[in-house]
Amino acid sequence: MINVGIVGGTGYTGIELIRLLLQHPQARIKMLTSRTEAGVKVAEMFPSLRGVLDLAFSPLDIAELKTCDVVFFATPHGVAMKHAQDLVDAGVKVIDLAADFRLQDLAQFEKWYGMQHDCPELLKQSAYGLSELNREKIKTASVVGNPGCYPTTVQLGLAPLLKTELKSEQSLISFENIIVDAKSGVSGAGRKASMGMIYTENTDNFKAYGVAGHRHHPEIVEALENISGQKGAFESLTFVPHLVPMIRGMLSTIYVNLTDAGQQADLQTLFEQFYQDEAFVDVMPAGSQPETRSVRGANYLRIALYQPSPKRLVIVVAQDNLVKGASGQAIQNMNIMFGLEEGLGLQSIGLLP
Amino acid sequence: MINVGIVGGTGYTGIELIRLLLQHPQARIKMLTSRTEAGVKVAEMFPSLRGVLDLAFSPLDIAELKTCDVVFFATPHGVAMKHAQDLVDAGVKVIDLAADFRLQDLAQFEKWYGMQHDCPELLKQSAYGLSELNREKIKTASVVGNPGCYPTTVQLGLAPLLKTELKSEQSLISFENIIVDAKSGVSGAGRKASMGMIYTENTDNFKAYGVAGHRHHPEIVEALENISGQKGAFESLTFVPHLVPMIRGMLSTIYVNLTDAGQQADLQTLFEQFYQDEAFVDVMPAGSQPETRSVRGANYLRIALYQPSPKRLVIVVAQDNLVKGASGQAIQNMNIMFGLEEGLGLQSIGLLP
Amino acid sequence: MINVGIVGGTGYTGIELIRLLLQHPQARIKMLTSRTEAGVKVAEMFPSLRGVLDLAFSPLDIAELKTCDVVFFATPHGVAMKHAQDLVDAGVKVIDLAADFRLQDLAQFEKWYGMQHDCPELLKQSAYGLSELNREKIKTASVVGNPGCYPTTVQLGLAPLLKTELKSEQSLISFENIIVDAKSGVSGAGRKASMGMIYTENTDNFKAYGVAGHRHHPEIVEALENISGQKGAFESLTFVPHLVPMIRGMLSTIYVNLTDAGQQADLQTLFEQFYQDEAFVDVMPAGSQPETRSVRGANYLRIALYQPSPKRLVIVVAQDNLVKGASGQAIQNMNIMFGLEEGLGLQSIGLLP
Amino acid sequence: MINVGIVGGTGYTGIELIRLLLQHPQARIKMLTSRTEAGVKVAEMFPSLRGVLDLAFSPLDIAELKTCDVVFFATPHGVAMKHAQDLVDAGVKVIDLAADFRLQDLAQFEKWYGMQHDCPELLKQSAYGLSELNREKIKTASVVGNPGCYPTTVQLGLAPLLKTELKSEQSLISFENIIVDAKSGVSGAGRKASMGMIYTENTDNFKAYGVAGHRHHPEIVEALENISGQKGAFESLTFVPHLVPMIRGMLSTIYVNLTDAGQQADLQTLFEQFYQDEAFVDVMPAGSQPETRSVRGANYLRIALYQPSPKRLVIVVAQDNLVKGASGQAIQNMNIMFGLEEGLGLQSIGLLP
Repeated sequence: MINVGIVGGTGYTGIELIRLLLQHPQARIKMLTSRTEAGVKVAEMFPSLRGVLDLAFSPLDIAELKTCDVVFFATPHGVAMKHAQDLVDAGVKVIDLAADFRLQDLAQFEKWYGMQHDCPELLKQSAYGLSELNREKIKTASVVGNPGCYPTTVQLGLAPLLKTELKSEQSLISFENIIVDAKSGVSGAGRKASMGMIYTENTDNFKAYGVAGHRHHPEIVEALENISGQKGAFESLTFVPHLVPMIRGMLSTIYVNLTDAGQQADLQTLFEQFYQDEAFVDVMPAGSQPETRSVRGANYLRIALYQPSPKRLVIVVAQDNLVKGASGQAIQNMNIMFGLEEGLGLQSIGLLP
Repeated sequence: MINVGIVGGTGYTGIELIRLLLQHPQARIKMLTSRTEAGVKVAEMFPSLRGVLDLAFSPLDIAELKTCDVVFFATPHGVAMKHAQDLVDAGVKVIDLAADFRLQDLAQFEKWYGMQHDCPELLKQSAYGLSELNREKIKTASVVGNPGCYPTTVQLGLAPLLKTELKSEQSLISFENIIVDAKSGVSGAGRKASMGMIYTENTDNFKAYGVAGHRHHPEIVEALENISGQKGAFESLTFVPHLVPMIRGMLSTIYVNLTDAGQQADLQTLFEQFYQDEAFVDVMPAGSQPETRSVRGANYLRIALYQPSPKRLVIVVAQDNLVKGASGQAIQNMNIMFGLEEGLGLQSIGLLP
Repeated sequence: MINVGIVGGTGYTGIELIRLLLQHPQARIKMLTSRTEAGVKVAEMFPSLRGVLDLAFSPLDIAELKTCDVVFFATPHGVAMKHAQDLVDAGVKVIDLAADFRLQDLAQFEKWYGMQHDCPELLKQSAYGLSELNREKIKTASVVGNPGCYPTTVQLGLAPLLKTELKSEQSLISFENIIVDAKSGVSGAGRKASMGMIYTENTDNFKAYGVAGHRHHPEIVEALENISGQKGAFESLTFVPHLVPMIRGMLSTIYVNLTDAGQQADLQTLFEQFYQDEAFVDVMPAGSQPETRSVRGANYLRIALYQPSPKRLVIVVAQDNLVKGASGQAIQNMNIMFGLEEGLGLQSIGLLP
Repeated sequence: MINVGIVGGTGYTGIELIRLLLQHPQARIKMLTSRTEAGVKVAEMFPSLRGVLDLAFSPLDIAELKTCDVVFFATPHGVAMKHAQDLVDAGVKVIDLAADFRLQDLAQFEKWYGMQHDCPELLKQSAYGLSELNREKIKTASVVGNPGCYPTTVQLGLAPLLKTELKSEQSLISFENIIVDAKSGVSGAGRKASMGMIYTENTDNFKAYGVAGHRHHPEIVEALENISGQKGAFESLTFVPHLVPMIRGMLSTIYVNLTDAGQQADLQTLFEQFYQDEAFVDVMPAGSQPETRSVRGANYLRIALYQPSPKRLVIVVAQDNLVKGASGQAIQNMNIMFGLEEGLGLQSIGLLP
């Protein structure tokens, strides 16, 4: 039984970790910390847990956390990096759901998150937790930086095209014309009392946001560089996120231009083969239209391909931003780190309707 | 392992049965029938099942269904009563999620459902499947009529008051002034392509419906008579259902007038004690406000009490109409009928947010 | 042309006043004040006004406000009463959309709003702005207290029953068993950045709130006493508000017990005659089901009656909480106060779908 | 006073025409026809019209329609072209909100709408009703084909770039890499009782649709050819529509690659100048984020520009699909055709919240 600590369990990735871990046969939530809610029963804040979890939030106490096998940080950016080394030194594995261990490029981290990194050495040794693409490194890592929700869709949506091109001289797509038009449910913005988050300002409304620049852009760029091995190749990638009036769900529509090689390839088969052993990545039949409700509450990510004109490929990727886009993938990473069956505790079927 | 057949799996109680049974350690879905969709993969209709369930719908074949241990009817009213006797004769247990085995009063059944009952004898032997209140009878029944969603909230909301009054001479509440103001999410109306169901006619809208009379009214009346042993006592109960622009969830606000005995009783304690051994009924602390999202996807039903003036008690009851109000309770009944632990396979935690 | 000042235009009753006044042929918005947003263009806060209104918020300056003909206070409770006397002395009419001039009972005001009243004398002279029931007094009033949204539905829903009974010895309904089960869209709670208001906590959710007591309860009681002339008669009225996941709309389901006289009366006709000259009160045909979307953005209030059993009458009342429940009625009152046609500027048709 | 006939007033563009025309000072709805609802009061179908419109639907009678000054067809594709010539011969102006007079290319019309055109000659004389771009032709036309909702956003979003390039040798954008990622509220699909339209299948869900091909694609292509004068230049334009869980609203995110000339131009100023005299097109300040709620119920279309990297321009366009995207623009065209002030009756301010 793995003893789990969760730091900062009052947000949506926190409650989602709790929901999933309570259904995990090999994990036990040992403690939940919260600066602001110490002493409060978790079920008082999240009434869905009444009768299920009797724990109260405790203050953040590193000594206590060291008695856990793994600690998840479901905190704002900048918290995990303050405590990770301490925990690692005590033999505790760390999985950060914020951005502290996502970007290897320190300058980018400083620019986008407005803070200096506290443990660049540990960052170098950490693994980027895109489970399907980085499994080997995650297995032995002490610290995992869990990917952002948008970057998860983009990486899994493009990986078969980028990985395959390495085998030949020629790539399948042009790197210069990648457009990611992404859409997220409101829970992607977290659990925050701000005017922009309130019901009446978001319902029956749709908008783009963050067009001036979004923190997931450098993460996407760095990750695609790593996947393709092409440093600097994705600078002109355009990423525009939009806000959908729904609670959960994320759908990215990715537009790429095919090279001659790409136009000749059987891309549907390429994707199906690339993911044939993956339990959580579903390459849908050609012509399918992934819907976010098909993954509501589930760890699946679904992909469909279209080719509206000879040179253009459209890749549609759907996931639940809080599961495969956050807490579900974090638990998938925990399973990998502890040598468990990768899908353990992640069998929740999507809630439909 | 219990072999399960589901007749009519294309509606929302059908897909919810599937979702829950797939997570049940002692049940196996052996077949799913559909008149209209025979041959179609279930996962094509319900994309949340892609990668989880490979079964296709089969035509309704009673001989095949007889090889099951239990058959759920998630069909329109009037289907189960045509086939139940046949199945029971073959030793198969039957759980009907429609109304065929809810009302013992045949005249009421004819009046409200517009059809004659096909098997009145079997109806007499059947058990009414309000698990918490009727457990003993369900244990040995061959046929269970699963309660309507609204009636479930009203019965569990009033039972402590009605059962307790039997112990003394005097009842705790006046039977003449019971008001049930009930609210349901749209999935309560099923999965039907009708103008009244479409997105644009229900979103950002609220209304009462069925005020001229709702089929759950006679079911509520008969059930309360049985609980209290007071035949004819609830004729003046008023039940007004409303439609809430949300997918799942049901909340009933029940208003009763307290007798002198009722005013002197400690009703909070009464409710807590009445349900102290029930895993799925949560009597919340005084002053709580049950929310439907606290039970989204879960088999819990939550109750809170208020006494706004000395003589008036308000009972608020929340459940997921598709789980405790339908498919969850049906599986709870299956567990009872097969001697399993009552909560088996029903541990899903509510999806919040 | 009436020169209008609006104090506190940054909330939802503020923007709704603006929307309606801009479509009013005899009114001109002269100034809009805001403590926090002085200098900011109104259209920056409310993008629906881009290209329509070029005004900026100004600081609250009483001298400036005195140059207006009428000042609306769309402020928190307690602001209008600080400035009303000053404005009235300068010949300016005042319409308060908060509670400062709703309750004549000072003890109740203190109890529920937690503050002493600043101008009890002015309060006595003010008129309660339920336009249809209090028209004569409003005509000559200098200060109008615009009714709460819930109280508007209850008063217009019950007035025909209470007014009529005065004509005979016997009343039509029992005063002791009035239940008001009310439901409101989220905009009823205003424009506030609090956790309870955020999108993800309100969507796909339904709950009762304020069951321990709601400020509109004493207002309802006092108003019904005034309408019926029966002091102290409505103490046992039960009022339970609920929150509906929709932006706008309010529906009250009112349950009353009929006396013998009430059972013999033709209540449908009674209501139709009572409101026959009212442009904004729609008594729907028997058996109708008012929907909030039928009044979205419009100043109409719709009423339907049902009699589910001989002794019980159910009155369903629907309105837009921000229009007839707030800013629309405020403008209706302005029209009355200035001798204009009562419906001027209030011809907006409900937005459907 | 213009006498207006509406054929097929039972859909959403029909009710929206009614709502807007009732607020038009120079128009009078003389008759509304419906095959299926003849004899039914319009206000019975659309309760928002109770107390506002007393008309009943009449059967489609061309002789009667000839007594109108203008007839709007809010019908399925293929109806207007059957009756237009008859009406035109009688001196009646025709505005079709369906597709019969949108495409000049008859082969495309047959391919996408599955029917032969009934009056190709009349089609040639008809005007394409994009008011801002085609005003001169609309002025004198007898028949106007009102644009599709998506095409309206794309044309107005791209016109300044396409029109301007004609002045110099070099164009501002590459025609080969235009991506239109469009999102629509559910009312865009009309008022239809189909499974895909129901509340529970669309709420809390997001998906792409019509990726295999959408009827608005050929309309966009033909329109851009006309605007730019570049026949055949837009074949590789990619258009992917998505369905947003909201009632009204449409937002198109358009991605284009800038040429050297485009990179040197001041595009913000270009757009502002291009639309400086347009009442209904709002070029927002650089860095703005248009929201669909800012135009809910209003005839405005808002545009914002971003340049995330030197070579890429992102154009975001928001409108209400039922107003500027359909019925509002149709009335704008009527105003043009009858020599009225173009904005008459279109002053409705967006409903926010």
